[in-house]
Amino acid sequence: MLQQLRDHARETALLASIEGLLGWDEQVYLPPAGGAWRAEQLAYLAGQIHRRRTAPQLGEWLAELRESDAAADPQSDVGCCVAQLTRRYERETKLPAELVEEVARVASQSHHAWVEARTANDFAGFRPWLERTLDLQRRRAEAFGYEHSPYDALLDEYEPGATADGVGRVLGSLREELAPLVRQIVDSRVVAPSELLARSFPVDRQEEFGKLAAAAIGFDFASGRLDVTAHPFCGEAGPADVRLTTRYQEHDFGDGFYSILHEAGHGLYEQGLPDEWYGLPPGESISLGIHESQSRMWENLVGRSRGFWRRFFAPCQGVFHEALADVELDDWCFAVNASRPSLIRTESDEATYNLHIIVRYELERAMIEGDLAVADLPGAWNEAYAATVGVTPPNDSDGCLQDVHWPSGAFGYFPTYSLGNLYAAQFFDQAEADLGDLEAMFAAGEFSPLLGWLREHIHSVGQRVTASELVQRVTGQPLSHEPLMRRLRAKFGELYGFA
Amino acid sequence: MLQQLRDHARETALLASIEGLLGWDEQVYLPPAGGAWRAEQLAYLAGQIHRRRTAPQLGEWLAELRESDAAADPQSDVGCCVAQLTRRYERETKLPAELVEEVARVASQSHHAWVEARTANDFAGFRPWLERTLDLQRRRAEAFGYEHSPYDALLDEYEPGATADGVGRVLGSLREELAPLVRQIVDSRVVAPSELLARSFPVDRQEEFGKLAAAAIGFDFASGRLDVTAHPFCGEAGPADVRLTTRYQEHDFGDGFYSILHEAGHGLYEQGLPDEWYGLPPGESISLGIHESQSRMWENLVGRSRGFWRRFFAPCQGVFHEALADVELDDWCFAVNASRPSLIRTESDEATYNLHIIVRYELERAMIEGDLAVADLPGAWNEAYAATVGVTPPNDSDGCLQDVHWPSGAFGYFPTYSLGNLYAAQFFDQAEADLGDLEAMFAAGEFSPLLGWLREHIHSVGQRVTASELVQRVTGQPLSHEPLMRRLRAKFGELYGFA
Repeated sequence: MLQQLRDHARETALLASIEGLLGWDEQVYLPPAGGAWRAEQLAYLAGQIHRRRTAPQLGEWLAELRESDAAADPQSDVGCCVAQLTRRYERETKLPAELVEEVARVASQSHHAWVEARTANDFAGFRPWLERTLDLQRRRAEAFGYEHSPYDALLDEYEPGATADGVGRVLGSLREELAPLVRQIVDSRVVAPSELLARSFPVDRQEEFGKLAAAAIGFDFASGRLDVTAHPFCGEAGPADVRLTTRYQEHDFGDGFYSILHEAGHGLYEQGLPDEWYGLPPGESISLGIHESQSRMWENLVGRSRGFWRRFFAPCQGVFHEALADVELDDWCFAVNASRPSLIRTESDEATYNLHIIVRYELERAMIEGDLAVADLPGAWNEAYAATVGVTPPNDSDGCLQDVHWPSGAFGYFPTYSLGNLYAAQFFDQAEADLGDLEAMFAAGEFSPLLGWLREHIHSVGQRVTASELVQRVTGQPLSHEPLMRRLRAKFGELYGFA
Repeated sequence: MLQQLRDHARETALLASIEGLLGWDEQVYLPPAGGAWRAEQLAYLAGQIHRRRTAPQLGEWLAELRESDAAADPQSDVGCCVAQLTRRYERETKLPAELVEEVARVASQSHHAWVEARTANDFAGFRPWLERTLDLQRRRAEAFGYEHSPYDALLDEYEPGATADGVGRVLGSLREELAPLVRQIVDSRVVAPSELLARSFPVDRQEEFGKLAAAAIGFDFASGRLDVTAHPFCGEAGPADVRLTTRYQEHDFGDGFYSILHEAGHGLYEQGLPDEWYGLPPGESISLGIHESQSRMWENLVGRSRGFWRRFFAPCQGVFHEALADVELDDWCFAVNASRPSLIRTESDEATYNLHIIVRYELERAMIEGDLAVADLPGAWNEAYAATVGVTPPNDSDGCLQDVHWPSGAFGYFPTYSLGNLYAAQFFDQAEADLGDLEAMFAAGEFSPLLGWLREHIHSVGQRVTASELVQRVTGQPLSHEPLMRRLRAKFGELYGFA
């Protein structure tokens, strides 16, 4: 029975990993005219995967296994498989196959429409696609069912167990302390030397240095790649096939480099999941929030630390000699941590980032709950940005058209970014308590103690516990906004002179 | 019924195009450790495709449609569908699904083993894989069945209707006239200025110039790409997604550039097939030989012609100013047509190329017919090269390990290369008879008359006729080695001074 279940899941994983490759290729190498057929391919695969995950035979195996002693402990291999596959089975059997295929097809077409609309700053042209997408997502929420809000039903896909209200509370607490901190930064007379990052960093050398850094923190390029996309992401096409993407601009070192570290953080999680359980819950990531905790940790808590740059600034000066020969380590560390309210989430800094998320969370929840019409989105977006982030977009391309998520049908996804930041800070505190001075290790080029700790406490766990259980188990505390706020206050207080 | 058949074929085409993407990616971007999982993915897809192509329901539809009036004319849309799908159905139902999956799995693993063996010049390490592959191919031939030789059964997959003896005859006639011509070239005192191609041609500019030429002859980059591989090929992942690959060496202009023109020739055929029949016989290429006639025509009859270079030599000098500023058009035309017996098929010239094919045809036929053991292949290869091509390989990497075909299980494929050369010359004569002086058009940058002629007479035909029927229909004559030999004698006689 268990073997049949494993074989079945393995075949589903084959299809899902094929879907992963097609999705990656769509964003990296697909010829422009290839979009329509790719949408058909992806819709077909989505339908097949859905059919397999909702096969009555699978339901029967699971029902029988739930009765067995081997499945009694939900944290055991078998128990985890049965519990999580049951959860997924019950969720997916609520969706009609046609809706699943329609969602996949529209997502792919809408993605192409969004790329054009963003280039042309044409919200009106994109609006029908977003309305169609929103309608499909609301139909999904209705099919899943929910107690309080349709948003719960969507959120649960990305962060199992989380609720709209729970997320609202923790983001509310964060906002209350973060907004004053950002105001202190804005009001500070200290000016960060951000222009250092805008010197000339030739693209081929950015790639070289980025790969060097990703390999140094432990990303295995024998089982992975790094390519170029418009919107950086980490894709996966098999247990030893993890694909990072970034983008390069000659006069923006930070965008390319920190995208690499961020995606490499995701990639380290993927490469750390137990291969022998590939495609089954003990071999899968817990949630997007936990995934994001890994990317944010390597990007921000490691890659923007002084310890990291004590190790890497000299090699960086070697690679970009013309740009960096006259730069001091202190100035460089300030430059990569410069904070300023800005328009684009993916380019925003560690302090203001979560304000961008709060705006999106509120708007998408309102759209899903029917309190905000798509037609009113640009206005609502601009108002929210002025009030929460402190800037007003000059156009929709840099406003509500900036992200790939809504065009792709991902509603309920954004909060996981902030959850990731919160988890990351709380985990990092614990790692430091267990391992000692991490920055001193980074300065010595030693990243394997931290990676080993993450492998042991997080990566190897698979889906044996939920995200909130993991936080409790690893740190002895429930999730809190305080570890992150403590770090942000300390870092930015020191940099901007109000510590 | 016909609509059901079309829908069914369309889903199969979705899977086949997905297989196409995975195969392309495997050779272009797959991380080294990703090979094992990719083999599983490809085996799974091959099994699914095979199951669909042999579904009893499909057999029933076809049986019923064969009785209908609409299918009476095998050159009509419906008749072509029914006849060709029946042919494929009858062929594939003879193969057990396990054998199909095993062949796909071993092909992928064996391909990886071959890459290593070729690098390490390790025939002994690769031998078990080739034995396993040969065994599987012989089992396939037995399953298909044949009248005279198991080689017929395999050849029929690539060149439907061709037989071992028929191919043997035409290659024999070719050899009889080609061997003396090659000897005349070797004995000539004239020396080609081949060293011009070995000057410095920076790789990025080779790519730029190659894309310019491919676009100029009509390859549509909105529906296609060009990437880098060890072994150039043309892949396909959808009706508007044709992927060329090449390889570049700074000091070998010819290898990279003519690989691009060659693969672009294949790509033009793919892009010229009727989209509305994608995945069904009226929208599919006739045979590998006809496919190769297109690649060879653009590579050799167009791309090595004086007319072509009258148009492109000046831009080429512009791109490679340092290398070509002092070079005369006549010398360049001689350099790209230089002929000399050599070790590597893919680097061989237009005159000696078919001798490489004749060696492979004889050896693979002997292996399939049981007259040559894999263990004896290196010796037999080296003897045949000495006797037929006039050179002796110093090692197996440049000998019997040089090609990707046998490691991938492709036996019966090689003769289609020579058939392609023969078809190309015969078609080109006819195009010239219909259109007038083609080289004068090339010199004026006009490639669309030839492309339009190919679209009309060959590309749009799909599989409505067989290769030999097509030759008869288009040229009014059966296939002959004479058009090719006439061209070769004229070109090389003039270049090497024995015309």
